[in-house]
Amino acid sequence: MSRYPTELLALISHLKKLPGVGRKTAERFAFYLLEWPEDEIKKFANQLQTLKEKVYPCGNCGSLMEQAKCHFCDVQKRDGSILCLVSSPRDVYAIEETKVFKGVYHVIGALLSPLEGRSIERLNLEKLEKRLSEHPIQEVIIAFDSTLEGDATALFLKQRLDKLGIKATRLAFGLPMGSSLDFVDYGTLEKAFTGRHHF
Amino acid sequence: MSRYPTELLALISHLKKLPGVGRKTAERFAFYLLEWPEDEIKKFANQLQTLKEKVYPCGNCGSLMEQAKCHFCDVQKRDGSILCLVSSPRDVYAIEETKVFKGVYHVIGALLSPLEGRSIERLNLEKLEKRLSEHPIQEVIIAFDSTLEGDATALFLKQRLDKLGIKATRLAFGLPMGSSLDFVDYGTLEKAFTGRHHF
Repeated sequence: MSRYPTELLALISHLKKLPGVGRKTAERFAFYLLEWPEDEIKKFANQLQTLKEKVYPCGNCGSLMEQAKCHFCDVQKRDGSILCLVSSPRDVYAIEETKVFKGVYHVIGALLSPLEGRSIERLNLEKLEKRLSEHPIQEVIIAFDSTLEGDATALFLKQRLDKLGIKATRLAFGLPMGSSLDFVDYGTLEKAFTGRHHF
Repeated sequence: MSRYPTELLALISHLKKLPGVGRKTAERFAFYLLEWPEDEIKKFANQLQTLKEKVYPCGNCGSLMEQAKCHFCDVQKRDGSILCLVSSPRDVYAIEETKVFKGVYHVIGALLSPLEGRSIERLNLEKLEKRLSEHPIQEVIIAFDSTLEGDATALFLKQRLDKLGIKATRLAFGLPMGSSLDFVDYGTLEKAFTGRHHF
């Protein structure tokens, strides 16, 4: 059987590691990359080469930074008394898009998942508790995915925060904007009912 | 508005050029790449860096090669009297998988598409006609996609081959293996009817 050139196979095996990319898609990507102009592909390669040197997590809050100073930690411009807990640096950008939150962030890095072997040690907790003890934080908003892992981690952290006497809140559950009741799952609809409010 | 770090944005813009990858997927890939170990990402970058030097099209048939000699053009091992026309180097590998074809290939590089501005000049025709005139080829199998572009290009090439007095055939159309009549489109079903055979 005649297989792809070795170099192409090696590239495919790397592309296959991207999330949601199977063998077929990786092959498609690889053949497509072969048709890119030489300088485009070199630029892409250089960017990958230096990615982790140029973009790295902030030592304090864990969100991404590329300058010496993390602008999410700048309490001159942001409200240092309210902290939003997220699981990954990407969530920080999603929340920033809403423009509703002006406090500081803390990235815990992962959600608890016994099935995937992520236990309490994987959460970046010492740093969080150090921050909570050193700074006067009034409220911690837990902004995790509304999944089993997100729920479990939120519950676990709420207990820790309760012990420290810090108010913990969690994002509201309910109908997504623009949704039709027909297409919303029962779990969401139940949450929307129990969380109903005057208007 | 706080946007992603510049380097990450540049990476996202490259990832977005991959086929079927939109902004959201490109962002997902980029954040995922940030979590890869340093040496993995360097290896990936190096592969991209040298890709086009190590894997390049054969000067004769246009399929991919990585050694000095194209093994698809090796007429000692393959039947040089039957030639299969494909639109891209990738198709060569798909056909090789079937093990049914032992002839040689010719990659024309593109299919005709007036909408996307691909006219006759884009097809690698001089090289094909040179090959056909220099070597005794009995049959040309046209193995293009069964799309509008594939049909148009096949028809155009058939006329050229007819003039040269070379027998041109095209892949059969019909039901794909394992398909159920319920789910097959009418066009395919029609082709399957008109192409019915004794068994």
